[in-house]
Amino acid sequence: MVVLGIDPGVATIGFGLIRADRGRNALLQYGVITTPPGLPLSRRLCQISDDMEELIQTFHPDEMAVEELFFTKNITTGIAVAHGRGVILLAAEKLGVPVFEYTPMQVKQAVAGYGGADKRQVMLMTQRLLNMKEIPRPDDAADALAIAICHSRAATSLLNTERVFDPKKYDTR
Amino acid sequence: MVVLGIDPGVATIGFGLIRADRGRNALLQYGVITTPPGLPLSRRLCQISDDMEELIQTFHPDEMAVEELFFTKNITTGIAVAHGRGVILLAAEKLGVPVFEYTPMQVKQAVAGYGGADKRQVMLMTQRLLNMKEIPRPDDAADALAIAICHSRAATSLLNTERVFDPKKYDTR
Repeated sequence: MVVLGIDPGVATIGFGLIRADRGRNALLQYGVITTPPGLPLSRRLCQISDDMEELIQTFHPDEMAVEELFFTKNITTGIAVAHGRGVILLAAEKLGVPVFEYTPMQVKQAVAGYGGADKRQVMLMTQRLLNMKEIPRPDDAADALAIAICHSRAATSLLNTERVFDPKKYDTR
Repeated sequence: MVVLGIDPGVATIGFGLIRADRGRNALLQYGVITTPPGLPLSRRLCQISDDMEELIQTFHPDEMAVEELFFTKNITTGIAVAHGRGVILLAAEKLGVPVFEYTPMQVKQAVAGYGGADKRQVMLMTQRLLNMKEIPRPDDAADALAIAICHSRAATSLLNTERVFDPKKYDTR
């Protein structure tokens, strides 16, 4: 199974592709989609949409895993990232890729073994689990790979997987 | 000029279409796009995308006006609405419709004459300005019509118009 992990955003979107087979993960590709800050938001969203569709059509992931949004610190950042995340979910849905989402704590738990792990520990474990010579760069790509690993473990164990399904999570209007 | 006003959301998106000519506005169409709460968020976003594209291809608006998001009250609602708003901006961009955005206060100022107007006053003025027999229903559609009127006035006066352009407004990451 090919898993596409996504660290959502508007300026920088991290992506990480792994092949997950019977508890073993192999790195396929990773990187970032970036959009220039000088462009109107609507045009940046259009670029993200195009790049996401190209990514999916190139690597044909079986499933996509995306980090959930939690913003207690900066609501303005949260609003912007959610614009990008909406467009990312749309691209997956349009191309028939099932979407799963995980909290940052679930990612840390799955990759580093405990939910209180720090960023550095998660990155080192991501590097080790994917047999990489160095910690993947930039951070957004490393985060995306960690999310992909998290999903591969959740999908294998058949525990803690959850489609983006529960509307109560989003207090929509 | 045909203006499409949008009150963004995920469960309910209000839309209002008006023809704006030399300071006079005529009602064309209004209503809401709704998505069922039981569906996964990604599928709801896909429906919004399809409906927005159909709306634009049916009425060929020259410009689109969307309310800006301010969420000091409920961040969870804000995150959800921003997912929908991202998909709405994307639809406009893809189909070549320029997007403009206004704060709730700008809308009140433009429609009711002062930024501190209450919801009821704005709705009554919307009804009057569009020569409607009753206040437009539901509220989301009335809000969308008010946003369209706001843009028609801003566009006519060449004051206060602003493309969705300033990336500093959104503290992106």
